[in-house]
Amino acid sequence: MIRITLPDGSIRNYTDTITAMDVAKDISEGFARNVISAKFNDTIIEVNTPLTSDGSLTLYTWNDEEGKKAFWHSSSHVLAQALEELYPGVKLSIGPAIENGFYYDVDLGDNSISDKDFKTIENKMLEIARGKHDFKMKSVSKTDALSKYKSEKNEYKVELIENLTDGEITFCDHSTFTDLCRGGHIPNTGIIKAVKILSVAGAYWRGDENNKQLTRVYGISFPKQKELTEYLELLEEAKKRDHRKLGKQLELFTFSQKVGQGLPLWLPKGAALRARLEDFLKKAQQKAGYEMVVTPHIGQKELYITSGHYAKYGEDSFQPIKTPKEDEEFLLKPMNCPHHCEIYNNNQWSYKDLPKRFAEFGTVYRYEQSGELHGLTRVRGFTQDDAHLFCTPDQLDQEFKNVIDLVLYVFGSLGFENFTAQVSLRDPDNPDKYIGSTENWEKAEQAILTATIDKGLDYVVEYGEAAFYGPKLDFMVKDALGRKWQLGTIQVDYNLPERFELTYKGSDNELHRPVMIHRAPFGSMERFVAILLEHTAGNFPLWLIPDQVIILSISEKYEKYAQKVLNLLENNEIRALVDHRSETMGKKIRDAEMQKIPYMIIVGENEENENKISVRQHGGEDLGMISVKEFSNLVKKEINKTLKQF
Amino acid sequence: MIRITLPDGSIRNYTDTITAMDVAKDISEGFARNVISAKFNDTIIEVNTPLTSDGSLTLYTWNDEEGKKAFWHSSSHVLAQALEELYPGVKLSIGPAIENGFYYDVDLGDNSISDKDFKTIENKMLEIARGKHDFKMKSVSKTDALSKYKSEKNEYKVELIENLTDGEITFCDHSTFTDLCRGGHIPNTGIIKAVKILSVAGAYWRGDENNKQLTRVYGISFPKQKELTEYLELLEEAKKRDHRKLGKQLELFTFSQKVGQGLPLWLPKGAALRARLEDFLKKAQQKAGYEMVVTPHIGQKELYITSGHYAKYGEDSFQPIKTPKEDEEFLLKPMNCPHHCEIYNNNQWSYKDLPKRFAEFGTVYRYEQSGELHGLTRVRGFTQDDAHLFCTPDQLDQEFKNVIDLVLYVFGSLGFENFTAQVSLRDPDNPDKYIGSTENWEKAEQAILTATIDKGLDYVVEYGEAAFYGPKLDFMVKDALGRKWQLGTIQVDYNLPERFELTYKGSDNELHRPVMIHRAPFGSMERFVAILLEHTAGNFPLWLIPDQVIILSISEKYEKYAQKVLNLLENNEIRALVDHRSETMGKKIRDAEMQKIPYMIIVGENEENENKISVRQHGGEDLGMISVKEFSNLVKKEINKTLKQF
Repeated sequence: MIRITLPDGSIRNYTDTITAMDVAKDISEGFARNVISAKFNDTIIEVNTPLTSDGSLTLYTWNDEEGKKAFWHSSSHVLAQALEELYPGVKLSIGPAIENGFYYDVDLGDNSISDKDFKTIENKMLEIARGKHDFKMKSVSKTDALSKYKSEKNEYKVELIENLTDGEITFCDHSTFTDLCRGGHIPNTGIIKAVKILSVAGAYWRGDENNKQLTRVYGISFPKQKELTEYLELLEEAKKRDHRKLGKQLELFTFSQKVGQGLPLWLPKGAALRARLEDFLKKAQQKAGYEMVVTPHIGQKELYITSGHYAKYGEDSFQPIKTPKEDEEFLLKPMNCPHHCEIYNNNQWSYKDLPKRFAEFGTVYRYEQSGELHGLTRVRGFTQDDAHLFCTPDQLDQEFKNVIDLVLYVFGSLGFENFTAQVSLRDPDNPDKYIGSTENWEKAEQAILTATIDKGLDYVVEYGEAAFYGPKLDFMVKDALGRKWQLGTIQVDYNLPERFELTYKGSDNELHRPVMIHRAPFGSMERFVAILLEHTAGNFPLWLIPDQVIILSISEKYEKYAQKVLNLLENNEIRALVDHRSETMGKKIRDAEMQKIPYMIIVGENEENENKISVRQHGGEDLGMISVKEFSNLVKKEINKTLKQF
Repeated sequence: MIRITLPDGSIRNYTDTITAMDVAKDISEGFARNVISAKFNDTIIEVNTPLTSDGSLTLYTWNDEEGKKAFWHSSSHVLAQALEELYPGVKLSIGPAIENGFYYDVDLGDNSISDKDFKTIENKMLEIARGKHDFKMKSVSKTDALSKYKSEKNEYKVELIENLTDGEITFCDHSTFTDLCRGGHIPNTGIIKAVKILSVAGAYWRGDENNKQLTRVYGISFPKQKELTEYLELLEEAKKRDHRKLGKQLELFTFSQKVGQGLPLWLPKGAALRARLEDFLKKAQQKAGYEMVVTPHIGQKELYITSGHYAKYGEDSFQPIKTPKEDEEFLLKPMNCPHHCEIYNNNQWSYKDLPKRFAEFGTVYRYEQSGELHGLTRVRGFTQDDAHLFCTPDQLDQEFKNVIDLVLYVFGSLGFENFTAQVSLRDPDNPDKYIGSTENWEKAEQAILTATIDKGLDYVVEYGEAAFYGPKLDFMVKDALGRKWQLGTIQVDYNLPERFELTYKGSDNELHRPVMIHRAPFGSMERFVAILLEHTAGNFPLWLIPDQVIILSISEKYEKYAQKVLNLLENNEIRALVDHRSETMGKKIRDAEMQKIPYMIIVGENEENENKISVRQHGGEDLGMISVKEFSNLVKKEINKTLKQF
């Protein structure tokens, strides 16, 4: 008899040999129709793999991450078959599922694939899919596996197999196709109803630029055509909202090959927007009792040896800066915390002085490979809205909660309504990955969990996601397109206070160790602005947007009145500009829409005579002819809707 | 007959051989009594040197820089004689006049000098001085000169003489003393009436740490005892105002051995003060049409090869930062201009768009030897209040004048009343020191001179003081102690626009080169705050000072009322704090004075009953009992006295 435990804890007993699909059908025929993959005792299996022992079974549908993975992994087999049929002699290498879809790296020999060929490949894949071929795993001896691929002259598979252990090698068959594979498929190809080849790119074999460059074919597939359509629409919308494109269009930032890749240059409008974000946070922080500090962008290597960063990251970072004399070595600072610890250490604090909350918009530099760089989201230099709170252990809970309040205030003021908190704790199986005592870790983890629960946050716990120096709470924000971004981080740290020998004098007149909290509600100014751009498509909250108002005069005759309106608005602290260009009204209006300016003011004879302005909202709504005073009040009211007092 | 031309252009003819002193006496006996040094045809001479040809003669008194130099140079001879008499066997090396006084580097053998010996040395010097010994120059052959010092086993003088040309070697005698010397003395030792040995320090022979360390004896001397007394008082006052001491006392900044020397850490009060300075300038800059940008603190080596900085400074700077892969090299940015040029290059500007004025509080890093570092005035990392203006040649004059206005506004708001403008032009004898065409240099130099004259500035022209990329205008400010500081710089640059191939489209639709102005009214935030600290002794202008008001309650009973007053003041945007400590009133008042807080508010029964406050000004003046409203108005009025609108 076999005992199968399901995720809800229920147990089913079977006397015959059964498969995951049998259990699914046993639960419900309707449910079984949707099951496409399964996990048995922590191993992904095929739904038709016989279960021969007691164990825990999880069944996956398309709606599960693991279900999608099996779906896309299976689709990559279909892609491979299609490529073999279309490009005889093609050599396959590897073809995994990825976050959105799958790819296959192939050696096309003298052939090549361009976007003109995508349709043919898609059709061939759909033709194969429609054959409803079952995916079937089989064991193959190392000798047979090698001999198959050697005869095909496929050096890639040969290399892969040579690194495998005889007896553990499996292939997967479907239709006339077979491939070296560890398993994890959907039942048959027929479930794949919609396919899109997305792109081709070059990819070095095993990611090593000394190897041959293969062709990587990216695709995605779905169980319904409608889902593909929706996905492509989302992709289209995401492209429109790509912050790199919008950043250029709105003149917010740029990059220069001469300055260096991954090093953003903030243009005037972007720098002003960033300054508004910083001022907004500074104001809230001042109310919350933070103090700003300023520290240099380099520190002696010694500093990072003390902090532990050097041992951990030194070799993969920007290399040390030597001085021409004196044999000194400095590092670009990858983090602000060591500097802030040294500021803390400038005084002997008493428990009455704590908490100390040192904040800095601190620019840090971290090496990323050029291939990893992406707009403002993955850069080599970025500014953290950083702060370090030093408090007594008794103050930790309250301080942590206060930080959560600040983070929620930031999200609320910037239109991020949808988020979950991710509590990142140690990987209990890898205690060596972390510095610091078990006792301190447990204290810190408990403090985060308590604060998260007390604040009523929607949260998940992730084991193994903690930083090496302490556990953390990250906020995962869902943007307007439903994509998830990690924004805002709060970390408890019992380790740096030890390493920097931080102390405070307690009421007992003895020296004690303070606890440290690292936090950054935005995370980094660069990444935050990028995400905000993609979330809002450039339609920033009114208080933040570069130009709030553009003034257009019907003809040159009213330019003077336009200027007067501009001055009045500026006196009311409204950011406005006049479009002085000698273009048609239609062109001016279209350009203002492109620039995402929330309000357009049009002035002509009527307006001047009545000392009023005609106002149009971005997107089209006509607010009619009103006075500048009325308009200013309207703008202020609109701003107050999102921007509350902290 | 000899024709002597005097500085005022007048000419005197002499038939006999005469000396500078003869000419002085010829002018007036009274004047001659004060003449202590002279220059003939650009060469410093003795006042008793016979003049044997026509030429220009300048006569110096103690009030001239050159007069002081001769006075102190002569005093170092007297010091050397005193040391020879007090420490038989002492070996002399070199002993020049310096900015304030003189020193002599000596090898004392087994002897040593401590501050306990200063009085004895001073007395010996005064004894020699009273002998009224004439300083007499004489020529000595190289053989004789070498043989004298070889017999004395003085390897230092031997080394010096070996590098001299036979026939050009002179010694100076006075009393029983003789020394290798190029000349430039006062007539006799009797003029030296007051002497002070200031300090002793170690100094490597020829500044090379591989050589023997000698003893450097620092001294100063004056023609009147009263002047020495005043100088020592000034020195005492300067010590009290030392920004390193005040910076610590007022908790503005600190340094950390771990972070690295010369890398300031701004503490909360200092960071807030600095932010106020920055905001003050940002506001004025916004009115003046500047746009803020933000750029990274590193740039590819290539960027500085383009700008010319690498060729000029590369080897003596912080060395390149390598990446762990990809063979890239970055440099810590020593200047912001290359980055701003790249921002300019992000658009194709039209002449209608110019001037573009990009401003950034840009932190730069420049290597200084550790021995050269000094508080905030000589650091390895500092933040420039930098801006670069890109304009058409036609706009240059006006832009330059606007920048002068901004600089004068900054000085006025910060209490620097006393300054001269220094126009730094090329050294006409060293054209190779500069990059760029002669034509461009001439244009730029003319633009600076015109603006300086048109603005009616008190100015001096210094040849050879220009930056390698262009001429400049520096503001030399005199502080409260009469010391001169270079503050605020404006530079015209025709060279970087060439190197970065900057262009704008002219009204002729052709591409033209813009002209660039570099400017920094503060210079650097670090240096400016240091100078302001020394200038004001920490009594910053009211608008800038960290805490404007401290509130003291007579007893604990009135703490609540003190808190109420605090809130009222904060609502009026006055920076105040309550001294909550359980100290005596006397101690609290003393500490508030130490902290240089401009207003002290005292609250007790009377104040609470009448809903008023008692106000005392820093330094003692009692302003009596007034309402918070009255006080707030008073503070605002006081602020408006120095802080005007730009």
